[in-house]
Amino acid sequence: MDNNVERPVGLGPAGRLRLDISYDGTAFSGWAINPGRRTVQGVLEEHLSTVLREPIRLTVAGRTDAGVHAEGQVAHCDVSAIPEIGKFLPRLARFLPTDVRISAITEVSRDFDARFSALRRHYAYRLTTAQSGAAPLVRNHVVPARSDLDIDAMRDASARLLGLKDFAAFCRYREGATTVRELQRFDWETDGDRLTAYVSADAFCWSMVRSLVGAILSVGEGRREPAWIDELLRQRSRSSRVTVAPAHGLSLVRVDYPAAEELAARNQITRDVRDSIDAEGCCGD
Amino acid sequence: MDNNVERPVGLGPAGRLRLDISYDGTAFSGWAINPGRRTVQGVLEEHLSTVLREPIRLTVAGRTDAGVHAEGQVAHCDVSAIPEIGKFLPRLARFLPTDVRISAITEVSRDFDARFSALRRHYAYRLTTAQSGAAPLVRNHVVPARSDLDIDAMRDASARLLGLKDFAAFCRYREGATTVRELQRFDWETDGDRLTAYVSADAFCWSMVRSLVGAILSVGEGRREPAWIDELLRQRSRSSRVTVAPAHGLSLVRVDYPAAEELAARNQITRDVRDSIDAEGCCGD
Repeated sequence: MDNNVERPVGLGPAGRLRLDISYDGTAFSGWAINPGRRTVQGVLEEHLSTVLREPIRLTVAGRTDAGVHAEGQVAHCDVSAIPEIGKFLPRLARFLPTDVRISAITEVSRDFDARFSALRRHYAYRLTTAQSGAAPLVRNHVVPARSDLDIDAMRDASARLLGLKDFAAFCRYREGATTVRELQRFDWETDGDRLTAYVSADAFCWSMVRSLVGAILSVGEGRREPAWIDELLRQRSRSSRVTVAPAHGLSLVRVDYPAAEELAARNQITRDVRDSIDAEGCCGD
Repeated sequence: MDNNVERPVGLGPAGRLRLDISYDGTAFSGWAINPGRRTVQGVLEEHLSTVLREPIRLTVAGRTDAGVHAEGQVAHCDVSAIPEIGKFLPRLARFLPTDVRISAITEVSRDFDARFSALRRHYAYRLTTAQSGAAPLVRNHVVPARSDLDIDAMRDASARLLGLKDFAAFCRYREGATTVRELQRFDWETDGDRLTAYVSADAFCWSMVRSLVGAILSVGEGRREPAWIDELLRQRSRSSRVTVAPAHGLSLVRVDYPAAEELAARNQITRDVRDSIDAEGCCGD
């Protein structure tokens, strides 16, 4: 059988595609393929393989946990022929389930790696302090919190976490994996009874964002002092005193990449660091 | 049995309560009680009757259709004793299903009538022109539209509908009911690929907002000229050429009421008008 007959029209030479992806994590068992479970990677690879008529494997920027959402997830895949994207994108939109969308597809160089090229990941964690709980239209991605939170104490505590630090107290243990990360942003913004945490870092270890948010909420509820955070930062293993905030408040909102001409150099730096300390890489969420 | 023993503590004298309500219409067969169906009125009356320990009947500002949402719905009910609202509200929040919320409960005078005192209803209809369709986190209340809509033509057409007019072409027929309404606002606002119609009137007849939006979309898609709207306004019965836009894009966002001292006078005006022309009142959506 001639393989070309099986391919969609308008194919160019082999290459690499960047996919910009969003999903509602509610009905997914997380990003990563997991036999017998509905996962984002599983659903996307299945549909992309069907539409592109070749087996597609995705590499992703942030491997989100079950229930976690994404508005700005990024993945890449290699294809034996570049599809005509103007036709391919609306076709995918029709076939994909409505809880996952590919908002853009871009041909990129082989130097672009969704995981290793990423400079930083930006997450949002959304809460409401309304006495009546989360508004119905947003209840899948907004978590109810107490209405008497001490936001000033939460901001004080969050600021203590910024910088290059060992986040062992906030990370699930994994053999040989580093827990040192550079936390670049941890802000709390209010808008009426909406309360959103913005958390950015070069990378995150498994369950780190939800653990950070859970710890800060303990401070906001008056169960801990802001200085408790300094104590946690001195720990060298996961702390059982840190509550992990619910998955459905969390969303991966953006991933930053360097300009095209700096990609090759960036990848080498990331790989060197990861190879030496972290065989499996980053990012539970 | 002493009835007082059955009542929650902290009850005052008999009175009327105003309830501010929001819901995700997806899993409801509309507002109005409908035997064997899950409706917003049915769920709320059941829970309120349980918590207040007396049969509760709600009167509502806008009887929304199946699938239509509300962020600013208003209802009232009479109670034989005013509950302690500071305790009652969080208790309701725990018991109610998460797709319907009561955001505020206020004791009001008997002159306040959620339906007859209302000065105007404000609806939003939410669309996206993104090629990839609605973003997963908002897909229950945002409707995908074509990406090449002619927004200028839509604004031109919408402006022709403003004022006191006979909206017969946009209303489902009901014996003896007037289709004259005062459309006070019909604006289209864009924010990136989000497109929202804001529609306000003293009242709406059944399916009127979705018919208005459907007609304007026909103009935006180039299938009709803006002047077609003038033709529709001359019709004295529902037009089969008007498409009804999908329910899940529509949300009742606010209801306006007069100041307390003007309530009695307002009710009398509304009742006089309605009694003469519209036995069953307004508002399919």
